Amino acid sequence: MERQQIEQIVADVLMELKETTVPASQHSMIPVSVSARHVHLSPQHIEALFGKEYELTKQMDLSQPGQFASNETIIIAGPKGSLQHVRVYGPSRRSTQAEISRTDAIKIGIRPPIRQSGDIAGSAPFTLIGPAGSVSLTEGLQIAQAHIHMSPRDAQNFGVTNGDFVSVEIRGERPLTIHQVLIRVSDRFRLEMHIDTDEANAGFIRSGAPGRIVPGQAVDRLRW
Amino acid sequence: MERQQIEQIVADVLMELKETTVPASQHSMIPVSVSARHVHLSPQHIEALFGKEYELTKQMDLSQPGQFASNETIIIAGPKGSLQHVRVYGPSRRSTQAEISRTDAIKIGIRPPIRQSGDIAGSAPFTLIGPAGSVSLTEGLQIAQAHIHMSPRDAQNFGVTNGDFVSVEIRGERPLTIHQVLIRVSDRFRLEMHIDTDEANAGFIRSGAPGRIVPGQAVDRLRW
Repeated sequence: MERQQIEQIVADVLMELKETTVPASQHSMIPVSVSARHVHLSPQHIEALFGKEYELTKQMDLSQPGQFASNETIIIAGPKGSLQHVRVYGPSRRSTQAEISRTDAIKIGIRPPIRQSGDIAGSAPFTLIGPAGSVSLTEGLQIAQAHIHMSPRDAQNFGVTNGDFVSVEIRGERPLTIHQVLIRVSDRFRLEMHIDTDEANAGFIRSGAPGRIVPGQAVDRLRW
Repeated sequence: MERQQIEQIVADVLMELKETTVPASQHSMIPVSVSARHVHLSPQHIEALFGKEYELTKQMDLSQPGQFASNETIIIAGPKGSLQHVRVYGPSRRSTQAEISRTDAIKIGIRPPIRQSGDIAGSAPFTLIGPAGSVSLTEGLQIAQAHIHMSPRDAQNFGVTNGDFVSVEIRGERPLTIHQVLIRVSDRFRLEMHIDTDEANAGFIRSGAPGRIVPGQAVDRLRW
């Protein structure tokens, strides 16, 4: 219980520093997209897992411009089990990273931290197994922090800036509000909120469901 | 999209009818308990699955008085797979029912509805397999609606009554507000909120974490 209390105090302080209060007038819908477990691979790890000079082949485009799901899948292994058929996303990235759910993590016996995509330092160690070989990494396994991709114009409309945190309510059969949702702004981004399969299953949420930034309801104002 | 819109309108109307506004002064902590998948069996199904005149043996008491986790486990089977080692809760009940998560349901290929415990009519069909036999049922499989057990005195303190719906915020590393949480009042109940493993994993919530009824924040007042 003590550790939990400390974690909570830390979380409280962080939220008070970061959470943004969105003006009540701005509450357009944001389409939600559910991200299943996947990996991003560096060029050298693509070769190590699939063979020399191997190149990923596109299965389908993802919603963010230039990103695609490849035909390739790999295995993620941990001390207690493995996750089969994990989709590789392309194109290749500078650093290899894997995004799995907490449910996945419990199954394979690893406790990855919750992280923003690309923020790899200090994330969990894991092993990847492909048809041509395996790679053991000291970091790169993480649980993705819920986030919203948006253009600078969207950001202006919503009254938020890159790096802000907001709360998003998603209604349906099992309504849920996800707090501490990170705002990511780039002119390459299309408006879309990304959640993982645990968040999706907790809220019976399917891709395409509308989310809504809760206006004026910064969590730091709810006192404990 | 059309079906989703209809579902949402129905959910909106239901919430406006049901959601309770809790006075701002009343916000004590409620301990959260995470319920893993489990089954409650009728006396005749205990015999069908474990053998004639078989009686459940207690492994440990559960938090609600008189309820216990037994040493016995069974298999829940669906068209796409099965869930092994599902714990049987005792004592026996008049009707057999199983509570699983959405993640479990997807794995075995069934779409059970979200239900209050005991509200079995029209829930999903499923098969139970035990060491002495199997039972196929036309209903009884469900996903548990998040709920709070409390005594009449607790209900008075919180300003709620049996059957009300409230929103509960659970803070931590991955803060979450669960809406449409059912209030269940009985003088046999001990104050405790029950959520399932999807809700727990979406919020990094462990049993013992404190939840808090959101004061004056009825979801029906947040317009879409």
